[in-house]
Amino acid sequence: MNLEQFSQYARDRVDQYLDQALDAYPPADHLHQAMRYSLFNGGKRVRPMLTYAVAELFGGANALTDASAAAVESIHAYSLIHDDLPAMDDDNLRRGKPTCHIQFDEATAILAGDALQTFAFELLSQPELEAPTVQLTLIQTLQNASGRFGMVTGQMIDLSNVDKQIDITALEQMHRHKTGALIRAAVKMGAQSVGVSSESDLNALDAYAAAIGLAFQVQDDIIDITSDTQTLGKNQFSDEDANKPTYPKLLGLEGAQALAKRLHDEAVAQIAPFGDKARPLVELANYIIARNH
Amino acid sequence: MNLEQFSQYARDRVDQYLDQALDAYPPADHLHQAMRYSLFNGGKRVRPMLTYAVAELFGGANALTDASAAAVESIHAYSLIHDDLPAMDDDNLRRGKPTCHIQFDEATAILAGDALQTFAFELLSQPELEAPTVQLTLIQTLQNASGRFGMVTGQMIDLSNVDKQIDITALEQMHRHKTGALIRAAVKMGAQSVGVSSESDLNALDAYAAAIGLAFQVQDDIIDITSDTQTLGKNQFSDEDANKPTYPKLLGLEGAQALAKRLHDEAVAQIAPFGDKARPLVELANYIIARNH
Repeated sequence: MNLEQFSQYARDRVDQYLDQALDAYPPADHLHQAMRYSLFNGGKRVRPMLTYAVAELFGGANALTDASAAAVESIHAYSLIHDDLPAMDDDNLRRGKPTCHIQFDEATAILAGDALQTFAFELLSQPELEAPTVQLTLIQTLQNASGRFGMVTGQMIDLSNVDKQIDITALEQMHRHKTGALIRAAVKMGAQSVGVSSESDLNALDAYAAAIGLAFQVQDDIIDITSDTQTLGKNQFSDEDANKPTYPKLLGLEGAQALAKRLHDEAVAQIAPFGDKARPLVELANYIIARNH
Repeated sequence: MNLEQFSQYARDRVDQYLDQALDAYPPADHLHQAMRYSLFNGGKRVRPMLTYAVAELFGGANALTDASAAAVESIHAYSLIHDDLPAMDDDNLRRGKPTCHIQFDEATAILAGDALQTFAFELLSQPELEAPTVQLTLIQTLQNASGRFGMVTGQMIDLSNVDKQIDITALEQMHRHKTGALIRAAVKMGAQSVGVSSESDLNALDAYAAAIGLAFQVQDDIIDITSDTQTLGKNQFSDEDANKPTYPKLLGLEGAQALAKRLHDEAVAQIAPFGDKARPLVELANYIIARNH
């Protein structure tokens, strides 16, 4: 499978899973609509792709992989809803569509985000999966990446960085929490879902994930200044305008591009030992630094 | 132990557990402060008391009971932070102190709520508890009560009821979700934490929990109009002012008081078979309809 095929496969698979799991609950019709709106808003599904691609390295995805991919995407969706709120980044456009609080209202957006976080743990704790030990490990990985030790702390650092002069180390620490932690969890849960226990395999995959996670963010900063609003699906210069520190600001555009390339090469080197089976992971790394939206 | 002693015991025990579990994480000092502020703001710890009191019926609390009591309280704390936000109930006073978004700011309050939700699942998924099957069951119970099938849906219904004429059935449905679900989870997790598997025991406890959960809410509506702001620790008539439907509005003050009494009696009848050991549960039910704040 090339990247386009693999991407289609992963997207269809996780979307179908999410669609079925997200049954309507009658008294909360409005809540359900807002959750669905934000889960299915044309996201690239990069995290599920990572989860599935890692599972492919070790014999292929199973039901625990599906639950993992869907749970990581639900956490991602919840974080975007809350990040876009007026009290946070105050964005009204996401992937070319009104953000959740614009499409519905602020209260609904807060609650839809809250419910999507819980939904992630619902997916991982389903009794039907019948693998309590693995399920608990997956929950540990996800909560660790998304809460006070990971994503939420990243968003907190991000907000406190507005209008501040920070150095490259502080910027990296922010991204390592804000987006890196969940990307690493997507990779780790892919491995855990298929029972990988080799420390060296897990370490190599984690190093790959850490490098592409950061590369993803560097590229995000690059396209924020090089792509127009239509291509981007959100407002161009939105980070610039918010007076947020970015890699191009600290390193210059060429410096940022060189860093993205270096992180890409590091990532690819880490998974070289897996050989041909790691093709989707390599192509994902290529895509991350080539994308323009 | 009388209720005062038991209440002190439960509060000390859950507070100590939460205090130790909530280690600071250096890059998120501000977030950590906000989580701590909201967790330790003088809450009555009714839910942990229930969890511990149920465990006492079956040989006493263990480490899983502690994690359950703390996790339920974390979910409760997160829900209060988000409910108080300007886009939701817009309250600036909670238990006599500034609400989280007043004490810190709105963004910090949203994130502290998010992190406290994750923290609940962190507590229940701790590897040190070494009981994956029970832990997963506890997580199932908690997510089911707090997400789209429970608390979040209750808050959604509550918001959609503002300025609306609704009947007693609709009001009960809202409360069953908004507060009832988590109170029932506190009771159920107390039982699950000590390995109760008897269906009849679980059903009796659940019926008790459902009745006192609703009684708690009816009493809340009563004291909203009968207690002054100082006793209440939040603004008197805050529900009245918000044009929210309440039991006294639908049933009159005496009708609401009669309902609280009837629910109390139902609750107590359910746990009569447990005899003397259920004393704290009976006294808790008494307290719930006698309290004035």
